[in-house]
Amino acid sequence: MNTPTLTTENLRINGERLWQSLMDLAQIGATPKGGVCRIALTDLDRQGRDLVTRWARDAGMSVTVDQIGNVFMRRPGRNNALPPVMTGSHIDTQPTGGKFDGNYGVLAGLEVVRTLNEHGVETEAPIEVAFWTNEEGSRFVPVMMGSGVFAGAFSLEHAYAATDTEGKSVRDELTRIGYVGDEVPGQHPIGAYFETHIEQGPVLEDADVTIGVVHGVLGIRWFDCTVTGMEAHAGPTPMGLRRDALQVATQLMQEVVASALRHGPDGRGTVGMVQLHPNSRNVIPGQVKFSIDLRNSSDALVDQQVAEVRAFAERLTVQTGLSIQIDLVSSYLAQPFHPECVEAVTRAAQRLGYSHMPTVSGAGHDAIYAARLAPAGMIFIPCKDGISHNEVEDAQPEHITAGCNVLLQVMLERAGT
Amino acid sequence: MNTPTLTTENLRINGERLWQSLMDLAQIGATPKGGVCRIALTDLDRQGRDLVTRWARDAGMSVTVDQIGNVFMRRPGRNNALPPVMTGSHIDTQPTGGKFDGNYGVLAGLEVVRTLNEHGVETEAPIEVAFWTNEEGSRFVPVMMGSGVFAGAFSLEHAYAATDTEGKSVRDELTRIGYVGDEVPGQHPIGAYFETHIEQGPVLEDADVTIGVVHGVLGIRWFDCTVTGMEAHAGPTPMGLRRDALQVATQLMQEVVASALRHGPDGRGTVGMVQLHPNSRNVIPGQVKFSIDLRNSSDALVDQQVAEVRAFAERLTVQTGLSIQIDLVSSYLAQPFHPECVEAVTRAAQRLGYSHMPTVSGAGHDAIYAARLAPAGMIFIPCKDGISHNEVEDAQPEHITAGCNVLLQVMLERAGT
Repeated sequence: MNTPTLTTENLRINGERLWQSLMDLAQIGATPKGGVCRIALTDLDRQGRDLVTRWARDAGMSVTVDQIGNVFMRRPGRNNALPPVMTGSHIDTQPTGGKFDGNYGVLAGLEVVRTLNEHGVETEAPIEVAFWTNEEGSRFVPVMMGSGVFAGAFSLEHAYAATDTEGKSVRDELTRIGYVGDEVPGQHPIGAYFETHIEQGPVLEDADVTIGVVHGVLGIRWFDCTVTGMEAHAGPTPMGLRRDALQVATQLMQEVVASALRHGPDGRGTVGMVQLHPNSRNVIPGQVKFSIDLRNSSDALVDQQVAEVRAFAERLTVQTGLSIQIDLVSSYLAQPFHPECVEAVTRAAQRLGYSHMPTVSGAGHDAIYAARLAPAGMIFIPCKDGISHNEVEDAQPEHITAGCNVLLQVMLERAGT
Repeated sequence: MNTPTLTTENLRINGERLWQSLMDLAQIGATPKGGVCRIALTDLDRQGRDLVTRWARDAGMSVTVDQIGNVFMRRPGRNNALPPVMTGSHIDTQPTGGKFDGNYGVLAGLEVVRTLNEHGVETEAPIEVAFWTNEEGSRFVPVMMGSGVFAGAFSLEHAYAATDTEGKSVRDELTRIGYVGDEVPGQHPIGAYFETHIEQGPVLEDADVTIGVVHGVLGIRWFDCTVTGMEAHAGPTPMGLRRDALQVATQLMQEVVASALRHGPDGRGTVGMVQLHPNSRNVIPGQVKFSIDLRNSSDALVDQQVAEVRAFAERLTVQTGLSIQIDLVSSYLAQPFHPECVEAVTRAAQRLGYSHMPTVSGAGHDAIYAARLAPAGMIFIPCKDGISHNEVEDAQPEHITAGCNVLLQVMLERAGT
């Protein structure tokens, strides 16, 4: 090993400074219950964007904005012809969001730069910190809008045309807050992409592990299911003459979970939404509609779950005579992260002495779209009770620090020193 | 056998006249879809009451009204010191009701009187036809209000104080339509009580049987059940760390049905109403509330079902750690009808050559309250597809006629000729 490598391996970020930046940014849109409401393309979003870009400029970074409002904050390298090693996330929040979701990924990137500046460390490739427009999707759909346009998942025009409940469009609101840039989305090279994020689930906390090495994002299939029987009065209708839609539906709801359990450890099966007709105490349900959410770490596995649920429904129809319709609503392919990035995160956590475990992301992140364009990886840290999208969302300062130290190491390794 | 008995056994009602009266009464509150909307204590209810009492007076009957608006239409006997043999039902309907529910029982009684008049048949005891106030309970609760007050199930003041959604009270509305009588409810002797009614279920039609000999009314227990788990994001939460309230609830919903099937043929178990929280596609349900409706022909049997469902819930709680709360909402005791009345209906159906079978009533009827005061029985006829409380409610003229002929025979037998 040569001297510069030894130096950077000993480099540590300033956890207190990062924590203070998180708390400062959380003041913009702070809610009485300790959360943050800073919805995409509102005045508060602008204030957040203005603060973060000011911090970036204070750290000597240049700032470019693309046409969908994605912001790239750049620290030059020795060889600026190389594509940048990028990190990032988002600073928009849910209406009753927390301080960490997204914001952590952006400010961890800024802290990496501040640390490099402080210690006068140059990198071979440039380093960039991005924040992507409207990741949350709570005001405008689709979610992960900025990174999605960037990756060509859908068009700029499609995103521009999206409107909120008041009829205001993304185009108009982005213009209003002054964040329509010149750069064509996607016309921005990325050498590699890393994103730090709170886990938004209970696995790391439950296992008492500091770093989740994210291998990929689960493939998702969403369905609407309708079971149709015959509504009838609960009193005069004997059991043998019933066509009870709920009794058939509950069997299928159990299969949704059973199938996920057969395809563990990453199989997920959830029925989150149920609607009965007529939904009256003394009427046998004539129709039950419910949602099915199936996820797994590979598309082959999730499609196996889909096939099993469909086959079970067909058997139920044969047995009961009730019709069961299962309609696909949405499909998101599984996105494995790049082996080199996954290994880099593992090595960094190990070197730094942090407990770590392989994990998957069950939720969407901007890194999914970035992974379509460049080698990508994610670093998870625990969050309290696995809760996010909630004002009580919380994370421990030592985990915040640890995740950022891992990020520093992998970016340095990838950018070269 | 003596001569008068032979004569009355050959007596038959006039089916066309009865059908025509049903169609005439159905004009008051007729809906475009062929149903009837004649809700209790509305102007239309008054018009219906006025028409039926006019028909009664035309048939030589006297009319008395009690303080809750129950109407008793009387044909004297030879011995008017004897308590009357009574029949009746109700003429109020559901908002989207049909032509037969209730109305059939009242007009069948009127047709019995018309038939006796036509053939100059005297009875020993007087005969009365009653219609009871607000059987349906769709505007004012409790249901079966008039017969309930009459039988002392609840007080006149309680009934008077009931209000509709606009805040109008039973007392005011009954006064407004001019149907507050002088008679104290319950101060009206009954020698025996019979009620003809459409079945409101599919059993007779399914068995292709004309007359249902009703042995009694099912006991009912209503519960609200709440299963409490922990809501969590469907993506990042692995199956092993979930506390999915719906997956526990669906097992209990299946036991509600399974327990009813174990206590056949009259056991009933229904989950008619389900509510999830937060009821979102990608959130594991944190809480599920649902109704449980258990019925059986004896209270011992229905209480056995209750015990099994509760025991199952306790086992589920032990297995899963999720809390399950089961709260009693209402309890209606089973009401067997009087053996003499049941036998009389059976004999009459047999003598008349109608196919018949023993059956139970799963729904409430005024006869339940009358049975607390006097020997009582009910006569069911099939209705199309078992449907009632619906504008498509329908019954066949030959069944309408048959049920009324049975009523004629049992009333003559009981009143004496």
